[in-house]
Amino acid sequence: MGHVDEPHEPPKGPERRGRGRRPAAEVRQAVLETAGAMLFEAGLPGITFEKVATRAGASKMTLYKWWPSPGALAFEAYFTAVEDTLAFADTGDIERDLTAQLHSFVGLLTGRPAGPVIAQFVGAAQTDPALADALAKHYVHPRRRLAADRLTGAQRVGQIRAEVDPQVVVDQLWGACYHRLMMPDEPLDTAFADALVDNLLRGIRG
Amino acid sequence: MGHVDEPHEPPKGPERRGRGRRPAAEVRQAVLETAGAMLFEAGLPGITFEKVATRAGASKMTLYKWWPSPGALAFEAYFTAVEDTLAFADTGDIERDLTAQLHSFVGLLTGRPAGPVIAQFVGAAQTDPALADALAKHYVHPRRRLAADRLTGAQRVGQIRAEVDPQVVVDQLWGACYHRLMMPDEPLDTAFADALVDNLLRGIRG
Repeated sequence: MGHVDEPHEPPKGPERRGRGRRPAAEVRQAVLETAGAMLFEAGLPGITFEKVATRAGASKMTLYKWWPSPGALAFEAYFTAVEDTLAFADTGDIERDLTAQLHSFVGLLTGRPAGPVIAQFVGAAQTDPALADALAKHYVHPRRRLAADRLTGAQRVGQIRAEVDPQVVVDQLWGACYHRLMMPDEPLDTAFADALVDNLLRGIRG
Repeated sequence: MGHVDEPHEPPKGPERRGRGRRPAAEVRQAVLETAGAMLFEAGLPGITFEKVATRAGASKMTLYKWWPSPGALAFEAYFTAVEDTLAFADTGDIERDLTAQLHSFVGLLTGRPAGPVIAQFVGAAQTDPALADALAKHYVHPRRRLAADRLTGAQRVGQIRAEVDPQVVVDQLWGACYHRLMMPDEPLDTAFADALVDNLLRGIRG
């Protein structure tokens, strides 16, 4: 536990492991993949530096150097694991692209154990300022920007009204899904995703 | 700690306190008001049976009898405190009523410390099944129903399209606000509330 004051950056050189050496980038990747697998097996409470280091064949000291807390490591591992699932296509048709992305997103949120894990991250962030910062910086803000960029593109070609704030749309589509995840009462499924898009594009006024 | 097996219901008779007696309903009300005040002073972690009992002038044994956990007491206290703020008017104009309720709701969520407290409840519920049950039963479900009833009334008079699912609208208005509360990045204010209502009633399609 004497290494928490060191800077949290990967060392430049290779690290020794047994008789061989692995480049730092390779060790880092192995640790993230291991932590991701453990996260999806046992959830956030199952992640400790000791357990991850043992299973990844890395030294605990290395983990202390690279991440400020097990929660921060778990979060980076989660983000690395789900990054591809959250990709945002641009086919030129905003309704099709929103629907496809939301179907994929709902699949992620309702899949076990990814759904409960993201709910646990957001939940824990309410009383853990360091996790809240990591979540905002590495997940919430960049994810919002990607969606807003696609929506701005749709405004440029006249598929969405110019005076609409794309950031509000983000809350009314993805935020609505998080609401059903974190405060469950009604089903979170693709029919819900379709209704979100239809209500918002078309308007609900009679 | 030997009273946790007793039923969690208020005793029928009065309880002794010093030389006087207070009816159970009066004691219960005092405990809830005290817990609510403490909750808004110090947040959820500040609530223990011992502290609430001392300040409310009630016996700790009584609190153990009436509530299964300090979290459950805190939740009922919160709910009692904010019930009036969350009332839903029916002036006959759905746009006006949604806007008024959302302005009031945003004020609650952004007020200190009520906003952080509800975020803490929802956050803690992700890893506390008993709190999740209480939240769903006493808050999420009845709140959704009140809003859905008002929206159904608006459908009956033709202000909202008949084929819209009122429950989806709930996620796109109140759920959108919870999203900005729990995963903060963009402002949660009355201008946001107005944009939510305008986007959804009118539709965002260009």
